[in-house]
Amino acid sequence: MIQKLIENIKKTNAPIVVGLDPMLNYIPEQIQKAAFAEYGETLEGAAEAVWQYNKKIVDAVYDLIPAVKPQIAMYEQFGIPGLAAFQKTVDYCKEKGLVVIGDVKRGDIGSTSVAYATAHLGKVTVGSQILTPFGEDFATVNPYLGTDGIKPFLDVCREEKKGIFILVKTSNPSSGEFQDRRIAGTAGADGTEEKPLYEIVGEKVAEWADSCMGDTYSYVGAVVGATYPEMGKVLRRVMPKSFILVPGYGAQGGKAEDLVHYFNEDGLGAIVNSSRGIIAAYKQEKYASFGAEHFAEASRAAVVAMIEDINRALEQTR
Amino acid sequence: MIQKLIENIKKTNAPIVVGLDPMLNYIPEQIQKAAFAEYGETLEGAAEAVWQYNKKIVDAVYDLIPAVKPQIAMYEQFGIPGLAAFQKTVDYCKEKGLVVIGDVKRGDIGSTSVAYATAHLGKVTVGSQILTPFGEDFATVNPYLGTDGIKPFLDVCREEKKGIFILVKTSNPSSGEFQDRRIAGTAGADGTEEKPLYEIVGEKVAEWADSCMGDTYSYVGAVVGATYPEMGKVLRRVMPKSFILVPGYGAQGGKAEDLVHYFNEDGLGAIVNSSRGIIAAYKQEKYASFGAEHFAEASRAAVVAMIEDINRALEQTR
Repeated sequence: MIQKLIENIKKTNAPIVVGLDPMLNYIPEQIQKAAFAEYGETLEGAAEAVWQYNKKIVDAVYDLIPAVKPQIAMYEQFGIPGLAAFQKTVDYCKEKGLVVIGDVKRGDIGSTSVAYATAHLGKVTVGSQILTPFGEDFATVNPYLGTDGIKPFLDVCREEKKGIFILVKTSNPSSGEFQDRRIAGTAGADGTEEKPLYEIVGEKVAEWADSCMGDTYSYVGAVVGATYPEMGKVLRRVMPKSFILVPGYGAQGGKAEDLVHYFNEDGLGAIVNSSRGIIAAYKQEKYASFGAEHFAEASRAAVVAMIEDINRALEQTR
Repeated sequence: MIQKLIENIKKTNAPIVVGLDPMLNYIPEQIQKAAFAEYGETLEGAAEAVWQYNKKIVDAVYDLIPAVKPQIAMYEQFGIPGLAAFQKTVDYCKEKGLVVIGDVKRGDIGSTSVAYATAHLGKVTVGSQILTPFGEDFATVNPYLGTDGIKPFLDVCREEKKGIFILVKTSNPSSGEFQDRRIAGTAGADGTEEKPLYEIVGEKVAEWADSCMGDTYSYVGAVVGATYPEMGKVLRRVMPKSFILVPGYGAQGGKAEDLVHYFNEDGLGAIVNSSRGIIAAYKQEKYASFGAEHFAEASRAAVVAMIEDINRALEQTR
């Protein structure tokens, strides 16, 4: 899948991913009304609205982008029907040729970690049958539990040629509370002070990545927020063979100029996510003229603008 | 819910929790066969087997125990049907008066964290309706993203009087890779060296716990593995108002004697989990005489033995 991701990026010339993180208040009233008319104001009704909204956005942007990243929490909040909408979204995006990154941030140990890896990237044996549960192409994974939590994912990645993005430095304001703590008895990449925890995690990611290589990049990538560009620069060097999935562009404040150092010299190695900025574009002043009725066209315009913005910044540094 | 947990523990005199972490290979053939006969060798068939297995175990042990802890990964691996079996299990255990700890180890930020908290502990608004998604009583949460990941859970806990257990020191062999790293510029509880990360996390848990108090204990608990008793002793002091959820007893090697320091002087403050040791008891030599047909009775015998084991160890230290 890392090969498919690279091919898709080259084909679209767009190192971006659209985060399918629907909130009910993003979804235009006409879609909510139609869904509630059919299923009532129920979890099923909400899930139907989410699915119809996603479908229209995907239809409007799929030819421009390499990948989508549905955030499972946004579906999980609508219980089983919500997760069924997640499943439909994953399946539909795969049909459209998109790489699907399940933003699930799972993390556990031993047989439980095996079960999560199976659920999202693998296959499960039931009697004489081998079945696919959710079937994403990539999943995001939390590193707090160490190698015991990661290894089962590596095994499934090798088997299925799928991939993971491990949280290293997240985009949120309080990410430093633990991730930036300086570790005693180490030397930082700059040689002068103790390494922060995120760099230690980055080094482990590089190790895991080495053990799980595709042709040029590893199946093992990392999550590094757009909001910490200096750290991104360091982590790019620490994990040379890993794709970096970059949240935090746009709504969270990350700028294209800040992101150029997340890429390698081959122009690859990073994929920048935008969620709200794309899927709820029609709510921005800039795209308001589309109106709620043409929300998907607003999303398309926002995708075009994002690709231009990032490519312009990348060209300026080449 | 922390009050209900305490009441249930007092009523049963059993500071334990049964981990409902079904693997297909734990489930006796007769149950699998019946489920596959009805639903085929499908995800639905596997989910039905899991549900029937759980139901029989719960029926056999519910009067002896205060709480159960279904591990969602084990259900997620069977896709949507698996998660429907998780939901059924949660609902059934609540009907039986058990406290349900959803072992979901979720962790994300901002609106995504709100969505996870809503999914597992809260209520979601759909049109004019207020609906309950999964509806567990407690959830486990990963701290790697810092306060931004925890605060939405605290808000829901206050609103719904529910609770969380935050991963502090996990029971697995590689948990030390990141969790034991010594943090520069701090002094350990023993006064001599830098604090390990898990202690820093424990201090944050204590802070969050203070902001979210029930009558005597906080809605905010912690996960500390039975396999690291010395660390458990320190963390007990660091987080005096938090219940500690203790995995790693039994199958993973944790002994009752090691666990006495996870409790406070009031005899409360910890709840010890056993999963495989209870639900697959009939596979152990000790309980083999029950046979696969009477697997649930073997589970009951294993629960009785576990309660005796822990209470004996607790009494010896009082």
